[in-house]
Amino acid sequence: MFGKFASLHEAYGRVRQAGADPFGVAFDEVVSPTTARIGGRDILLLGTNNYLGLTFAPEAIAAASDALHRYGTGTTGSRIANGTYAGHAELERRVARFLGRRDAMVFTTGHQANLGILATLAGREDHLLLDADSHASIYDGARLGSASVTRFRHNDPGDLARRLRVLADKPGDRLIVVEGLYSMLGDVAPLREIAAIKRETGAYLLVDEAHSLGVLGERGRGLIEAAGVHDDVDFVVGTFSKSLGSIGGFCASDHAGFDLLRLAARSYMFTASLPPSVVASVMTGFDLIDQRPQLRAQLSANAARLHAALAASGFRLGPSVSPIVSVRLRDPALAVTFWNRLLSAGIYVNLALPPATPEGESLLRSSVSAAHSFAELDRAAAIITAIGQELGIAGPQAAAAESYVSAAD
Amino acid sequence: MFGKFASLHEAYGRVRQAGADPFGVAFDEVVSPTTARIGGRDILLLGTNNYLGLTFAPEAIAAASDALHRYGTGTTGSRIANGTYAGHAELERRVARFLGRRDAMVFTTGHQANLGILATLAGREDHLLLDADSHASIYDGARLGSASVTRFRHNDPGDLARRLRVLADKPGDRLIVVEGLYSMLGDVAPLREIAAIKRETGAYLLVDEAHSLGVLGERGRGLIEAAGVHDDVDFVVGTFSKSLGSIGGFCASDHAGFDLLRLAARSYMFTASLPPSVVASVMTGFDLIDQRPQLRAQLSANAARLHAALAASGFRLGPSVSPIVSVRLRDPALAVTFWNRLLSAGIYVNLALPPATPEGESLLRSSVSAAHSFAELDRAAAIITAIGQELGIAGPQAAAAESYVSAAD
Repeated sequence: MFGKFASLHEAYGRVRQAGADPFGVAFDEVVSPTTARIGGRDILLLGTNNYLGLTFAPEAIAAASDALHRYGTGTTGSRIANGTYAGHAELERRVARFLGRRDAMVFTTGHQANLGILATLAGREDHLLLDADSHASIYDGARLGSASVTRFRHNDPGDLARRLRVLADKPGDRLIVVEGLYSMLGDVAPLREIAAIKRETGAYLLVDEAHSLGVLGERGRGLIEAAGVHDDVDFVVGTFSKSLGSIGGFCASDHAGFDLLRLAARSYMFTASLPPSVVASVMTGFDLIDQRPQLRAQLSANAARLHAALAASGFRLGPSVSPIVSVRLRDPALAVTFWNRLLSAGIYVNLALPPATPEGESLLRSSVSAAHSFAELDRAAAIITAIGQELGIAGPQAAAAESYVSAAD
Repeated sequence: MFGKFASLHEAYGRVRQAGADPFGVAFDEVVSPTTARIGGRDILLLGTNNYLGLTFAPEAIAAASDALHRYGTGTTGSRIANGTYAGHAELERRVARFLGRRDAMVFTTGHQANLGILATLAGREDHLLLDADSHASIYDGARLGSASVTRFRHNDPGDLARRLRVLADKPGDRLIVVEGLYSMLGDVAPLREIAAIKRETGAYLLVDEAHSLGVLGERGRGLIEAAGVHDDVDFVVGTFSKSLGSIGGFCASDHAGFDLLRLAARSYMFTASLPPSVVASVMTGFDLIDQRPQLRAQLSANAARLHAALAASGFRLGPSVSPIVSVRLRDPALAVTFWNRLLSAGIYVNLALPPATPEGESLLRSSVSAAHSFAELDRAAAIITAIGQELGIAGPQAAAAESYVSAAD
């Protein structure tokens, strides 16, 4: 039964030989949004999704702790049975209000939100149009459902329009699925162009704001707010496990029939609901996003600072300046070495290897938090640059080592 | 896009007309494992999965609260990135030790555990043999994967053996999937017979102990322990959201290659890991299961008491005496009325309607907790009986109203 994993076993073995296990790092202790300890050493966390640094917000911890004492450790039931407490319903109203939508459904994870919504909304006659770089949960939601699936080239409205034209004579609805901020390279969707195509073709549009909620938009409502396309978006999916610092997922919509998904989306119906403490901490997280625009401003300044420093060092980065700053490398073995050197130097970033990456590249994915100080980011950039130079990746010699040319560079 | 839900809309509308919304009950407050409040009234919770009543265990609440303050509200990362803290690894060792297995993987929900394990373990050449009454997460895991799927009649080892014979000449591995305790009727799998078939045919065997962990077996290890078939089971799946009172899922195994699933199971790789407070509360839950065998004894006595009382009243119940005690009804409209009458009388049970139910019946699903007192259960049985008699379901006249005959009766 495990024979099918032989090539994975081999590839993983090669990665493990190079040093630490990039996919099995266990932090002995995480002591702040930006600091962990491994083996008695302090590690700067530069590879999380803790964009606003809210995981240690005293208000959120207090609210969660209070809910624990009042309502217990869990609900032991699904949302459609005994698992809906007043807090779950209140959180749904909060999500809807935050996003300016009529309704919202709260799921136990963001992954389950995409699974449930995509598998259920689009039926056998319908067509899902997925950006090729979509998150695994979007692909899996499509696979769970029975709609036809068409991929279009990442962030390419022209390709999306062409694919919709091919489908023009077929029956059924079309649902376009994009993400606000793509997790690997930190690039944003060309949402105005996509919204225009949606209007022209009568398609529906779903935007997954997993990485952009609380991050983009004047009030942190996400890319939809930043792009000014509120009325063109039919469904907003997102998670509580990134900027909101907890766990859970949601989908919000203005459509009248939306509430019926509660009795159709299996990942909503057949899983235990969120513990009351999680609900309380997420509610507080929304309050903090509203009350502290300075967190978003700091995050933006931090993102610009790290992006500028690494760009100046000659690294190839993603096309957008965003809290996700990924160094792009063609050689996976070099990426593994680089990742290990960084961890040894006290810096944790995410390592992403093909085939799970855009364009088959290897990525050292940094992500910036509002909780990072400029000093931390400057020190990290200096260390990344120094190691990159030693490995022949950054600086003037990088051109020779990395001759790959991309339109995004 | 919502036209496909028209018949659901209509059916739901009929249910709603009968009174409260059985699938949208929101408890204003849940104040103990067995008591909630709605509109200022106390409601006896007789439809949860809170088998050991641990949701309000002071030790679990204290551990969760401590972890919240020390490690924050969430990890903001997946297990293969920044989301593995010492606690996650420790919990995996705890699960493995508890079950006497070599390895365990912890997932963010039990639903995601089944999704990830089933979709990944069985490949294109392989065959999944699923009990027909399997949980939605098992069916969805099978659908997400690429193995061939064969259903066998619920709890029917003979049918399983026949289906395996049909597959005898086909290539690939066979994975038999059963549950320890089935959630709708509370019946247990004939695990010894199934284990014998597994041995004879060289198949693999997975047992989902979602409802039986902490409930069955001398030490609460589940049906595998109770049936004495430890060595015949290859994979044990379970959840932390029922007897353990929190949230999360796991799979445990003795197989050498098991750890590789961490880099192959997408529902493990692409979702945020459990918050530290949840991990702490689950760890404490395992301690309490070990330290308090009296909880299991009380649960067992409670289950027998409710089952005996409702059987004596002439209700058709499930075939096993277990903490899940379901009144079986043929008429969905009658079930909805019954459910509403019970809620009005201060008793919450789960309502399950076809097509989601075994044999297309409607179920008033009670579940018993170790935290219930005999007095509470006796009062509940009396009320259920009285309302049942008024509706012509219980008592001598029930035979006329419910002439259905089942082998299980």
